[in-house]
Amino acid sequence: MPDTATDIDRIMDPDAVAVVGASTDETKRGYQAIETLQEGGYEGDIYPVNPSADEIRGLDVYSTVSAIPGRVDLALIVTPAKIVPQILEDCADTDLAGAVVIAVGFGEAGEQGEALEDEIVSLAREHGVRLIGPNTSGMINVHQGLNLVGADTVPEGNLALLCQSGNMAISLFTEAATREGVGFSHYVGVGNEADLQFHEYLSFFDDDPETDAVVCYVEGMSDGRAFLEEAREVTTDTPIVVLKSGRSDVGKRSASSHTGSLAGDAAVTDAVLEQAGVVSVDRSDELLSSASALSSLPSADGKNVAILADGGGHATLAADALSERGLSIPQLTDETQDRLQAVLPDAASVVNPVDVAGGTDEDQSVFVDCAEAIVADPNVDALMLSGLFGGYGIRFAEQYTEVEIEAAHDLAALAEEHGKPLVVQSAYEGFDTEPHAVLREQGIPVVESLDVATASLDALATYGERVAAAGESSDFQLADGPDAAEPISDAVAGGRTQLSEFESKQALAAADLPITPFELATTPDEAREAAASVDGPVAMKVVSPDIVHKSDAGGVALDVSADDAADTYDDLLEAAHEYDPDAQVDGVLVSPMADAGVELIVGVVDDDQFGPVVMCGLGGVFVEVLEDVAFRALPLTEADARALLADIDAQEMLDGARGNPPIDRDAVVDLLVAMSEFVAANPSVSELDLNPVFATEDGVEIVDAAITLDPDGTVRPDSEPALSRGTTDD
Amino acid sequence: MPDTATDIDRIMDPDAVAVVGASTDETKRGYQAIETLQEGGYEGDIYPVNPSADEIRGLDVYSTVSAIPGRVDLALIVTPAKIVPQILEDCADTDLAGAVVIAVGFGEAGEQGEALEDEIVSLAREHGVRLIGPNTSGMINVHQGLNLVGADTVPEGNLALLCQSGNMAISLFTEAATREGVGFSHYVGVGNEADLQFHEYLSFFDDDPETDAVVCYVEGMSDGRAFLEEAREVTTDTPIVVLKSGRSDVGKRSASSHTGSLAGDAAVTDAVLEQAGVVSVDRSDELLSSASALSSLPSADGKNVAILADGGGHATLAADALSERGLSIPQLTDETQDRLQAVLPDAASVVNPVDVAGGTDEDQSVFVDCAEAIVADPNVDALMLSGLFGGYGIRFAEQYTEVEIEAAHDLAALAEEHGKPLVVQSAYEGFDTEPHAVLREQGIPVVESLDVATASLDALATYGERVAAAGESSDFQLADGPDAAEPISDAVAGGRTQLSEFESKQALAAADLPITPFELATTPDEAREAAASVDGPVAMKVVSPDIVHKSDAGGVALDVSADDAADTYDDLLEAAHEYDPDAQVDGVLVSPMADAGVELIVGVVDDDQFGPVVMCGLGGVFVEVLEDVAFRALPLTEADARALLADIDAQEMLDGARGNPPIDRDAVVDLLVAMSEFVAANPSVSELDLNPVFATEDGVEIVDAAITLDPDGTVRPDSEPALSRGTTDD
Repeated sequence: MPDTATDIDRIMDPDAVAVVGASTDETKRGYQAIETLQEGGYEGDIYPVNPSADEIRGLDVYSTVSAIPGRVDLALIVTPAKIVPQILEDCADTDLAGAVVIAVGFGEAGEQGEALEDEIVSLAREHGVRLIGPNTSGMINVHQGLNLVGADTVPEGNLALLCQSGNMAISLFTEAATREGVGFSHYVGVGNEADLQFHEYLSFFDDDPETDAVVCYVEGMSDGRAFLEEAREVTTDTPIVVLKSGRSDVGKRSASSHTGSLAGDAAVTDAVLEQAGVVSVDRSDELLSSASALSSLPSADGKNVAILADGGGHATLAADALSERGLSIPQLTDETQDRLQAVLPDAASVVNPVDVAGGTDEDQSVFVDCAEAIVADPNVDALMLSGLFGGYGIRFAEQYTEVEIEAAHDLAALAEEHGKPLVVQSAYEGFDTEPHAVLREQGIPVVESLDVATASLDALATYGERVAAAGESSDFQLADGPDAAEPISDAVAGGRTQLSEFESKQALAAADLPITPFELATTPDEAREAAASVDGPVAMKVVSPDIVHKSDAGGVALDVSADDAADTYDDLLEAAHEYDPDAQVDGVLVSPMADAGVELIVGVVDDDQFGPVVMCGLGGVFVEVLEDVAFRALPLTEADARALLADIDAQEMLDGARGNPPIDRDAVVDLLVAMSEFVAANPSVSELDLNPVFATEDGVEIVDAAITLDPDGTVRPDSEPALSRGTTDD
Repeated sequence: MPDTATDIDRIMDPDAVAVVGASTDETKRGYQAIETLQEGGYEGDIYPVNPSADEIRGLDVYSTVSAIPGRVDLALIVTPAKIVPQILEDCADTDLAGAVVIAVGFGEAGEQGEALEDEIVSLAREHGVRLIGPNTSGMINVHQGLNLVGADTVPEGNLALLCQSGNMAISLFTEAATREGVGFSHYVGVGNEADLQFHEYLSFFDDDPETDAVVCYVEGMSDGRAFLEEAREVTTDTPIVVLKSGRSDVGKRSASSHTGSLAGDAAVTDAVLEQAGVVSVDRSDELLSSASALSSLPSADGKNVAILADGGGHATLAADALSERGLSIPQLTDETQDRLQAVLPDAASVVNPVDVAGGTDEDQSVFVDCAEAIVADPNVDALMLSGLFGGYGIRFAEQYTEVEIEAAHDLAALAEEHGKPLVVQSAYEGFDTEPHAVLREQGIPVVESLDVATASLDALATYGERVAAAGESSDFQLADGPDAAEPISDAVAGGRTQLSEFESKQALAAADLPITPFELATTPDEAREAAASVDGPVAMKVVSPDIVHKSDAGGVALDVSADDAADTYDDLLEAAHEYDPDAQVDGVLVSPMADAGVELIVGVVDDDQFGPVVMCGLGGVFVEVLEDVAFRALPLTEADARALLADIDAQEMLDGARGNPPIDRDAVVDLLVAMSEFVAANPSVSELDLNPVFATEDGVEIVDAAITLDPDGTVRPDSEPALSRGTTDD
């Protein structure tokens, strides 16, 4: 390894490994780890470390890491937790790049464990050693034969696995062992993420020639914002597929007791991962197949999938399954339909889904003729072949196997030529037939389950869409500095954390956000004048930094005429004083009644894992009962804002349901982007609540606003700088 | 076979089979069918039929079916479509019970095919022959060795398969061939259902000692109502699992071009199958595993599932997957937690999900100790064991295999003893280990996918719930006879199909349905008087049999005071005449303004497959944008009505969202049952639309109503009487 190798390269691809806690007892991990390295074909140096042994499996044993004569890249520490600090102390003057800490009893195990974890992290930083774990099953470099886990069989392949559960890793290894063509380049058990975190491995995998896709099983990320930043860069070349657990309330509790991580809100996680170009799956049985398809196939340019089936049942079920996942089954062009009809029997269905209706029973090369017509169709982005292909030699007559092998070559060539992904679902997947082997050699996935095939096509379409969008998406960089808006800096100076509606609106209006006009009246006369200057009735709301819930305090009056405005002023103040005799009341806000329209709520919330996140949804029952809200991480680009709006379920409400005209989406997008810029310009803002916002065909208006401050800026996740890497020196 | 065998028994379990279209050409179906019967070990008589051959595979050939000397139970007809009528003509004087018609070119193939299908059905009925198909891949009695399909391998087992796609059947056969412990007793390709229909096989399977569950793949049923009736009886002893395709728009079109069947509305199908106690699955990869679990395990008494995992990842993912499907992960009792803590290490999680945290690494009998505590817990209805069980001998040390085998026996015995279902998810499922074989022998499913394990548990809980409920559910018998309500019989006599709001309300009020009080005013003075007699403002609506959409015609006025009622009367009549100068106007309906509350819509619609079906949902955006409506087949029992209400998604709206009190569910249930009785008493009613209905904490009120009639009663599906069977004579 050249001297320019960075820490992460040395850790992931080490030339020399120390096993600390090595043992002469064959039943101990400290013995087995060395055995596994030797038998796995690891060609680097292996240094057993144990103060009281001389030789293990033919290797000299060293009393400490610092006693090892050569340079050591990585230490596998298999000792109990309490000895780990002393081992790290000993590494002070070594050139050790990293250590894998297997022991449990750290952050996941209560206060004492947390203290021990803090201790080893600070020792490691002091001595320039990066840590994998603790509470990890280890790491594996499959192509190097470096197995620090002891899992018996890890099938070799092109997927890198970042995993927060050792048993999930074993599950994925065994799943791959029973699936032809699926395997791994690397495995890292990230454990408690005490030092090295999820995101810090991504760019290594991006540059790794053995890795074509990254698979992540995540319970909770300690720095989700950094993951988004890295993922956005990496995913353009190397697809990232995430299975995030802890989606349910019980699952969250379970994740927290497992790795001590906060699982966060599943809807937020899905949305921000989408924004970064990451593909999420929510079933564990779709994780490997989706990643494998992404690793070997071009992504789909769109969601239009053609189905080629040798039976009406598969055609129908495939159409259902693809539709259910939001993919489209487009009409084929007249030309394509003519070409299909020319090679298929009359009974065939040549619209999409295509059912060959027996047309391939005697000659399976007809599949190729059909596929040729279909993949050339401009309406088609991807093809699913569903039914019995690869099994005709078993099902009908042996001589068909040769025909199918030829057809398999031709199908793979066609898909390659047109750059359109092909996924094959076959009832005969479990029979390991030759035609399937040919397809797999060319990178075409063959799966038994129609639903798994559908999930793979969904992943290919989603990835295509996300990679295209991620280029226009936010870079997730948060600004810092002084607050730009006066009401905010004043409040911060005054030690306040809550702005009144008046102050909030002042700050937003100064940044040109579209607020319903408002005037602060401090006397009944001023209220009357303000109301008279407005065309039509007004809304009046009491202004007090001490009254957050104005309606509860009787502090709101709607549809007030100019004549009644002065009396209403008095009524509102009286109600406010009755509600809270000590409240400081600054006056009454007078605004024209807003144009009703579609009621939206817009806000910024502070997510534990991903920092400031925009929420936008429909008001009323949509938010209160249906929780139909969408999320994106700040800052927002225009493309992000548009994607966010498109994530709201009840799109009909935006497009003009119930006799209304469609709302002005551009105006909502402008508001979201302006709000993002406002938050960026005012780092003390921790929460923003615009509720309601009315959207009509003519524009958008913020009717109520509340800003919450956190002058300490805890909303900004303190992100560690990513490991420097590449050709710069170490 | 005794003489008392009925037709369906003779068809499904024949002593003698004729192969019509038998051939001496080894490449023809007419040869292979005989070969398959002989090689499959079928012990009944086989009679080849062919006018121009003497001997095939050592058997005498007969020129016609009528020329066969012995009694023939079943004929397999493999000739082209156009010869089938002549074959059936020949059977006029035979005692043939049934015929399997393989040919295509019937109902699925346009007008000419439909005519041919009608012809063979009428010939078959005339001659007392029941038909399977046409357009079927055939039928199989696996235990009898009777294979009329020619599928190479059909694993023997306890599932009966009714399937509307030959290739789906092949898929399920091959899937079973690669899954230990899953197999079939019977297969019937129902094809076009021209004569024998889905429901007619059910009670045979119910009585069949080889069959423990029925699996159906359905594109569309020609008599869904009869299926509901039969299924409700059968499912109590023999679970029925249905995969219904054609759920999406494209899928519907595809199903229709495949078997010519109408796929219908997926939401209606799901609801009425639930009502009949049938378990539906919507993924093809969950069909067999769910049916298999139901065939070998007791159903769960409730939705409370305990998870016992040997890793935090599996524990968390299982909790997510179960929650996602609506199952519960209950708290374990303190006693159970204490028992678990006593056998598990400190790091274990003894709440549900239980994570043994390494506690089984050295001794897998600890799984039994844990399971013993868990299945005894009264909070637990079912147990999922998730992780690596059965693979410890592979993963850790060979000697563990013996321990696991012992544990497998003990786990199965525990589940049996407590009558609670146990499903095992194991990463090592694909390795066919001995402990897994032991579990399967005791009927415990072992699956690789966490999601499939979850689906099986869902099926067990759903089945338990549905069988319990199906006993209280409707028997799906529709009344017939004269209409009970005068306005309806008058309208029928007058040849009208649409009742006015006034007539509709009269009819419903006479049947004691809760209608907002209403009075018909035919002059301005009457309108004033009617309004004055009401406390508060009134709603006024023009009454005309020619104006269905009153609002569009400007025929509705709300919140009218008694003083304004006379003028409003004139305005409404003027608007109605302007809208339609020829409309017959009967006057104006005057009602008190209804108590707002939760807006519901209630109706009866006529479903193509299942006949009259009740629809109920929330009004406004819930129905218009979200289509949040629920269905049940008529007639409704109180339990059906309650289950229907519980199927509405936005339950919060019924339970008192947004500061409202919960609605009076009993009142809504009473209304639904009364409406069901009303429709039963008036067979001419084809559609009923109660919209809106307002529900409050105090009751329920129908504010608007419209009744549509079909005097020909086409709403009543004309159901064939089911085959008589059992010990009555044939």
